[in-house]
Amino acid sequence: MHQIIGDMELDTNGPSLIDITRHIASWIKINKLEKGILNLHILHTSASLLIQENADPDVLQDLLNFYSKIAPTNNNYKHQSEGKDDMPAHIKSSLTNTSLSISVQQRKLMLGTWQGIYLFEHREKSMTRKVNLHFLGQ
Amino acid sequence: MHQIIGDMELDTNGPSLIDITRHIASWIKINKLEKGILNLHILHTSASLLIQENADPDVLQDLLNFYSKIAPTNNNYKHQSEGKDDMPAHIKSSLTNTSLSISVQQRKLMLGTWQGIYLFEHREKSMTRKVNLHFLGQ
Amino acid sequence: MHQIIGDMELDTNGPSLIDITRHIASWIKINKLEKGILNLHILHTSASLLIQENADPDVLQDLLNFYSKIAPTNNNYKHQSEGKDDMPAHIKSSLTNTSLSISVQQRKLMLGTWQGIYLFEHREKSMTRKVNLHFLGQ
Repeated sequence: MHQIIGDMELDTNGPSLIDITRHIASWIKINKLEKGILNLHILHTSASLLIQENADPDVLQDLLNFYSKIAPTNNNYKHQSEGKDDMPAHIKSSLTNTSLSISVQQRKLMLGTWQGIYLFEHREKSMTRKVNLHFLGQ
Repeated sequence: MHQIIGDMELDTNGPSLIDITRHIASWIKINKLEKGILNLHILHTSASLLIQENADPDVLQDLLNFYSKIAPTNNNYKHQSEGKDDMPAHIKSSLTNTSLSISVQQRKLMLGTWQGIYLFEHREKSMTRKVNLHFLGQ
Repeated sequence: MHQIIGDMELDTNGPSLIDITRHIASWIKINKLEKGILNLHILHTSASLLIQENADPDVLQDLLNFYSKIAPTNNNYKHQSEGKDDMPAHIKSSLTNTSLSISVQQRKLMLGTWQGIYLFEHREKSMTRKVNLHFLGQ
């Protein structure tokens, strides 16, 4: 039983769901991780992580629309100092995930056929996002 | 320290919160798992996992009502190819959990007195759902 | 590789986001935990856990407002037996987290610069809340 730690960095350009499954899968292969639990943690609170359907891109668009509607930009938020899209970003982060724990088996992520791992960017301006990877297993 | 992997399959019949605590608890006992972390992962994105109150069934009904209202079926979703209840199901999944990590101590799930583990079905038609179980501990 | 289990208890006084990062960080130091995964689990379903921004207190106020609005007290909930703020509390818990898994590295929580760990109290009356800590690592 051992632990492997890594990180990934991703540049984003506005609200979107970015499929990072391949990045994670190749990190597992490179490090020859057989079986264990992988913890992903995004080091921000205005972007988040989400496991969602990877088949129809319309699903991602509908998710973006839903979250824009539930936490609209033009609301009377007290927190305005970092731009009017920052508070909605924190709300969307709170409704989704900052960390995810995923099973690794036979050097593969244990995901359903239609599941992908997404970095969910909520800010409008370009950002550089960091995700920490922590594997515990063999 | 070792790892045990398993899975469970469950047939569902429309939107509901199905208590799977006993299934999980008996899997722990059968496999004689003393102490560790159990990761549960549902292999779908139109059903999800949730820890909620197991005392008053009205709580479950109110939760179903809340999620039906926040993600109604009759909305202008772009994603319609799998039925009009599929996109709301993805939204409800994104608001709750695809995976859960739960502490196991003395061969028991470390849950509060009133906590149960639920499979949260969001689709209207009958479905077969799979949950992966991955235990890491001793 | 070993496991350390602990718990913390916290008295709350109405809806608020209480920063528990220091409690967790000092528990890690006292137990000399070098590297591993820490699972936090709140033993209730009317309070929850959340990683959020720890810089501007306005963010916390806006989050409280958002959740009060999305799950208002004066709704036609079926579950009324524990007070009219109990069902909204369950809804808010379902939208946030009952458990969190956080990476520990070099005796520190692997959090972003602006991230704090919060206990999110949803009930109006004074409560005593329990959080279970389960560390797996070295």
